[in-house]
Amino acid sequence: MGDAFQVLVGGPEADWPEQLKQGQLSGRWAAADRGALRLLALGYQPEVVVGDFDSMSKAEQDDVFQQVAHVVTKTDQNQTDTELLLTTLDHLYDVERIDIYGATGGRMDQMFSNVWIFTNPKFQSLRSKVRLIDRYNEITFYEAGKHTLHKSPNMKYLGFMPLTPVTHLTLIDEKYPLQQWSGNPYSWSSNEFVGETNHFSFESGIIAVIQSRDAEI
Amino acid sequence: MGDAFQVLVGGPEADWPEQLKQGQLSGRWAAADRGALRLLALGYQPEVVVGDFDSMSKAEQDDVFQQVAHVVTKTDQNQTDTELLLTTLDHLYDVERIDIYGATGGRMDQMFSNVWIFTNPKFQSLRSKVRLIDRYNEITFYEAGKHTLHKSPNMKYLGFMPLTPVTHLTLIDEKYPLQQWSGNPYSWSSNEFVGETNHFSFESGIIAVIQSRDAEI
Repeated sequence: MGDAFQVLVGGPEADWPEQLKQGQLSGRWAAADRGALRLLALGYQPEVVVGDFDSMSKAEQDDVFQQVAHVVTKTDQNQTDTELLLTTLDHLYDVERIDIYGATGGRMDQMFSNVWIFTNPKFQSLRSKVRLIDRYNEITFYEAGKHTLHKSPNMKYLGFMPLTPVTHLTLIDEKYPLQQWSGNPYSWSSNEFVGETNHFSFESGIIAVIQSRDAEI
Repeated sequence: MGDAFQVLVGGPEADWPEQLKQGQLSGRWAAADRGALRLLALGYQPEVVVGDFDSMSKAEQDDVFQQVAHVVTKTDQNQTDTELLLTTLDHLYDVERIDIYGATGGRMDQMFSNVWIFTNPKFQSLRSKVRLIDRYNEITFYEAGKHTLHKSPNMKYLGFMPLTPVTHLTLIDEKYPLQQWSGNPYSWSSNEFVGETNHFSFESGIIAVIQSRDAEI
């Protein structure tokens, strides 16, 4: 059994799942920058924090640095906070699972970065271990092969998003099947599970699978 | 001078710009499905509405159909509401500009669809005429060539998101320049304008440009 982490990056609280906001998610935590302050305020104790910390006051910095085992200061501004956080966890621990919160909402350039990170060969070993979770969505990442999907409770829709060019994408037993599709990035949205378990396969590329439910509009 | 439209699709109100919520956006409107009811409630008068309308009561349908000049019923469930709305506007009018609201927030599979639509050759003629606008972002779409970008008031960051494989992407005079980059879809996030006008170029593919500002977290 490896280590399981929950990670908070910079997205707005409005897009967090209710459980996170209520301080009800048990487990180990890591955060980027002011995410550390937000976790502490909710009663979560981060083990790892990364960032340049220049948006924190000296008092806030002291508070965070005192309570956190691993503080990594960002020096390379070409790296996003999420990238540095993932690299740090991968380096410090034998990571088995990472649930990332705060990756969506607010700035779309950051949201796209948080998804496309997982096409980077640097994160190949983490790719299958990560979930991006927000109030209405759960996103997971897949390499070529045949895969089994398990329906998340509370989610209704199923989306397939090739993040790179892919070949022979086949949605085998979902509500709307697809046969041997090849092409550039695309969003196959609004599919649904048939039962609790479905399957899909493809021969090359990287695909994000999105389980989602309707927002209260 | 062609026709300029504002379009409301199904995303949650929490992600709308304040002006839209306040009923302060003048101009011509089109909507998908229950978006028509939402527009009418805010005092906007849609000219065109598309959808399958099965989520509306008979009374709601009567109300909408009475007040709207063009009602197009969706029969092909392989098409998203946004696609049908764009096709309809393109067919009925000499479209010069379309601002799309409600394309983000809530379900990520739908959000990705709303962006990747513009890689479809079917929407080539609309590609350069469209903006996706939400509370924190404005997204526009570009084909190969050299382009001039104008800074939107209220926005701070500038992101470049190749939606297809692209070649020779060059960020010429932005805060963080880039030379002749070629590759698969990627998110070059957190760039910034230098002054009010900047330029970029690329030789093949399709790129989304995202102007954004930080959310109130």
